[in-house]
Amino acid sequence: MTDLSLYIDRNKELVQKELINQLDQQTIPEVLKESMLYSVEAGGKRLRPILLLASYEAYADKLEKALPTAVALEMIHTYSLIHDDLPAMDNDDFRRGKPTNHKVFNEATAILAGDALLTYSFEIVGTDTGLSDEQRIRLVRMLAQVSGPTGMVGGQLLDMEAEDRAVSLEELERIHTLKTGELLRFAVFAGAYIAGANEKQLAALEKFAYYLGLIFQVQDDILDVTGDQEKLGKPVGSDEENQKSTYPKLLGLKGAQNRKDYYVIEAKKALQLAGAEGSTLMELTDYFSNRDY
Amino acid sequence: MTDLSLYIDRNKELVQKELINQLDQQTIPEVLKESMLYSVEAGGKRLRPILLLASYEAYADKLEKALPTAVALEMIHTYSLIHDDLPAMDNDDFRRGKPTNHKVFNEATAILAGDALLTYSFEIVGTDTGLSDEQRIRLVRMLAQVSGPTGMVGGQLLDMEAEDRAVSLEELERIHTLKTGELLRFAVFAGAYIAGANEKQLAALEKFAYYLGLIFQVQDDILDVTGDQEKLGKPVGSDEENQKSTYPKLLGLKGAQNRKDYYVIEAKKALQLAGAEGSTLMELTDYFSNRDY
Repeated sequence: MTDLSLYIDRNKELVQKELINQLDQQTIPEVLKESMLYSVEAGGKRLRPILLLASYEAYADKLEKALPTAVALEMIHTYSLIHDDLPAMDNDDFRRGKPTNHKVFNEATAILAGDALLTYSFEIVGTDTGLSDEQRIRLVRMLAQVSGPTGMVGGQLLDMEAEDRAVSLEELERIHTLKTGELLRFAVFAGAYIAGANEKQLAALEKFAYYLGLIFQVQDDILDVTGDQEKLGKPVGSDEENQKSTYPKLLGLKGAQNRKDYYVIEAKKALQLAGAEGSTLMELTDYFSNRDY
Repeated sequence: MTDLSLYIDRNKELVQKELINQLDQQTIPEVLKESMLYSVEAGGKRLRPILLLASYEAYADKLEKALPTAVALEMIHTYSLIHDDLPAMDNDDFRRGKPTNHKVFNEATAILAGDALLTYSFEIVGTDTGLSDEQRIRLVRMLAQVSGPTGMVGGQLLDMEAEDRAVSLEELERIHTLKTGELLRFAVFAGAYIAGANEKQLAALEKFAYYLGLIFQVQDDILDVTGDQEKLGKPVGSDEENQKSTYPKLLGLKGAQNRKDYYVIEAKKALQLAGAEGSTLMELTDYFSNRDY
């Protein structure tokens, strides 16, 4: 295993423990708690919390300080998957090789579990006594902005509307920036902000996060063409089947790869500006770019 | 019209304007915004924001200061109705005499509009520059607690589980306290807190809110037996039909009325303790108790 895989595995475990810990403390009606835990424990890449922790570690040590916020972010991501999988939305029966939440429980419980995870994420940040009031309120505000109607939820709606019709590259980037990029932006920002990075560094990191989001999405589209179904844990070729606009479709496979390489260069430039060129964020950029799952 | 009706109408209008104002400022994808506005504009009693504003006015003037929080609370209430009406939940085609959100738009959009309103409510409190950081963070925390898995969403799940089976009075009160009472508790607390009420007053108000929540629910159950379908804007007798446990069923109609009268006395005692016996909260208690819609 490389140092980076060890790093990722260690932090994944920290996140997993804290996710369960945060829910276990609470008196939540049994079935609701089970349903929330089911999706939270289902695993996944944990890219967002890992990114948040790496961003924290670029500027400070004792990463426990950033752990509650990292977990809150992962809960938002998890809720969005639960609602996305519902029959009225993507109607998926499996996620990460396991039955989706509404298949195990039922639709009503899945809707409520999603609502509960979303709401609870704000409680986590709001009650995080390791942070000052000023820090907490800035994080709450940004978490709401990136995940709400002007962020992720807005992106989900645009994505839905874009199905079965041609979409320009510009439109495609707007959709992805909202749907995926905004939560990644929060991850990068929040980690560094909690660590005490200054406003100039934070501004450079916003740029970094923007490119990282695009790298993430181009690679997602590329994997849907070239990926290994088993490793991905989801069928490949579904974009083609759903007539979805993707980078390979708009630019060709080679063109998409070139664009990704360009984004990687820009992301790394931004990291240098942020004074984080020696951090794990540098390696994570390549990891995002080259991942095969 | 009585002074109280004038008071309620005036504040309803303030709330309505601020609700639309808060959403209009934002760059939200068109259909999503329409869907959010549709349910937000659909009206309703606005009991929660009116209660919040009355609680504020019991301790201070210039009620504009409490308006953003009042609107955030109403958005949480609205989102819960949108999700509640979904086919997988209560499957209601009409609400307040109008087609429900998912009937006008579609299920996917209704799910997202609910998610968006929930998330946006935290953004409103988080960005309310009329409040200090300390105030904002306490309100965010409490708003999450009363509406999340340990509050409203938890109550919705328990309510679902309680359908079609006998429920004790104790269980019934727990369900209602979570499902309805917690948001009312927030309304009463938040208004007074923003107005600068002290901790002793706030503690007495928590008691008041507890009884007010029960009054609200007993009256809801009574209206389902004795109410006028037209005034209520929903069919009566549905509790009986759905074999729902209610106060009249458990205590008889007279017993339910007696219990409500007892709650009214306790609520007013608590208001005296809170030094709010001269405020509109006193009249609102009778209004909650005697409402016929």
